[in-house]
Amino acid sequence: MILLKLGGSLISDKKKKFSVRRGVLDRLAAEIKAGAKEKLIIVHGGGAFGHPVASEYELHRGFKDKAQTKGIVLTRIAMNEMNNRVIDALARRGIPAVSVQPSANVICRGGRIEQLNAEIIRKFLELDITPVLYGDVVLDEKQGFCILSGDQIISYISKIFKPSRIILATDVDGIFDKNPKKFRSAKLIEEINPANLEKILQKLEASPRDVTGEIKGKLLELVALARKGFEAQIINAIKPGRLKKALLGQQIIGTTIKKGRYKWIQNDRCKKA
Amino acid sequence: MILLKLGGSLISDKKKKFSVRRGVLDRLAAEIKAGAKEKLIIVHGGGAFGHPVASEYELHRGFKDKAQTKGIVLTRIAMNEMNNRVIDALARRGIPAVSVQPSANVICRGGRIEQLNAEIIRKFLELDITPVLYGDVVLDEKQGFCILSGDQIISYISKIFKPSRIILATDVDGIFDKNPKKFRSAKLIEEINPANLEKILQKLEASPRDVTGEIKGKLLELVALARKGFEAQIINAIKPGRLKKALLGQQIIGTTIKKGRYKWIQNDRCKKA
Repeated sequence: MILLKLGGSLISDKKKKFSVRRGVLDRLAAEIKAGAKEKLIIVHGGGAFGHPVASEYELHRGFKDKAQTKGIVLTRIAMNEMNNRVIDALARRGIPAVSVQPSANVICRGGRIEQLNAEIIRKFLELDITPVLYGDVVLDEKQGFCILSGDQIISYISKIFKPSRIILATDVDGIFDKNPKKFRSAKLIEEINPANLEKILQKLEASPRDVTGEIKGKLLELVALARKGFEAQIINAIKPGRLKKALLGQQIIGTTIKKGRYKWIQNDRCKKA
Repeated sequence: MILLKLGGSLISDKKKKFSVRRGVLDRLAAEIKAGAKEKLIIVHGGGAFGHPVASEYELHRGFKDKAQTKGIVLTRIAMNEMNNRVIDALARRGIPAVSVQPSANVICRGGRIEQLNAEIIRKFLELDITPVLYGDVVLDEKQGFCILSGDQIISYISKIFKPSRIILATDVDGIFDKNPKKFRSAKLIEEINPANLEKILQKLEASPRDVTGEIKGKLLELVALARKGFEAQIINAIKPGRLKKALLGQQIIGTTIKKGRYKWIQNDRCKKA
């Protein structure tokens, strides 16, 4: 089984609220159809749909006041809408994709998944159906609700379903030592392993806050997975053909987070989220 | 807490595939906003969205062959779309409604609910959010998948949440002794109780098959509930003002299924579904 993440920035235009990248999405669906020779679970991010509303109503810190109710409603509407478009694009290319709404399936505790009904995912796979999950606002036993990232879903279900490969399709070539969208001198890190992780984290922390907070969170989520023996590959799926090649197991440019004996690093972003 | 069912025929036009009755839906949302003074759970039917695809691929009998996979995918897409429109209409009128996708939350066994994560519904209610469920194609431990009706959801969650009132908003005045859409002589049955049930069932069975199968199934679902002590009221919400009145507990035309010591009647339709 292959676990595939479609990044929010890849399939939507974060600068334009509620805008999906139709052309990209359609091409990705075609590449998935051509490249996925095993069963598949897909998780997508919130991108231009979930993020703007969730941050407007400060949903990431859980319940603060009643006004957030509207934010929950609007975020849920936006994510349903985004997910519909993803499912639709996949189905049009012949991928039997079915939405599995995280907010109806998962309960968190302090921002971390406390229960997730994996039986539902397993049974869809048994029917040769591709379950599609996504970053969502979900209920939380401690703080009322929280934002559950696609990355945390990837991490959690990997441990249950033990995928043969984890592919994170994004809009950059992989993890860089600086923000590649701002610095031309940014260098791609092709491999992350127990020996170089700490140096990479230091470099990321030295870069401007906004982007690195996100990348650091994602990276630590993947490192936690690598400690359990699951290797993940970050690729740039904006470049045509790369996702298909990655799915077929062919070598392409990207960052691989190698499995290994990483030191335990507190995932503060996730703890807070 | 009030449990409200919005019938599929009420909010969509069963004669036109994938068509929602926008005007009706908007008015119903306004009536709900004006009339619901308690917490609320809403369940809607599949109507013009779920039914055509589900019956084309014969999903109601569970897994028969691989071709049904497409039917599951298309039914799920249709139901997500319908549910989005319902949620959107409710939210526009200021009802904090959030979709709870049954296929991500429920597992059936032989067409009957085996597990349903009620914690998710409960937590939304605690946040003063209105969970909205719907008839859906869901996974089934015995037959792969099945069609879960909105009526079965109503019946199941009533036992858990013990609503103060159960209102079934439809496009007819209630249960008639014949099909009121075909026979002008059809008489409304205002009350169903242990004394008159058997006679009513006999009359329904004597009417043409198509409609009565549905009505009989619905009625038996409600009778099973009435045996447990939960009274349900069927009303015609096509008539402006009736839903609001029903929500406010005012007397209106309709059929009430009185609680009481009904004899056990095998719900064959549900057993098969």
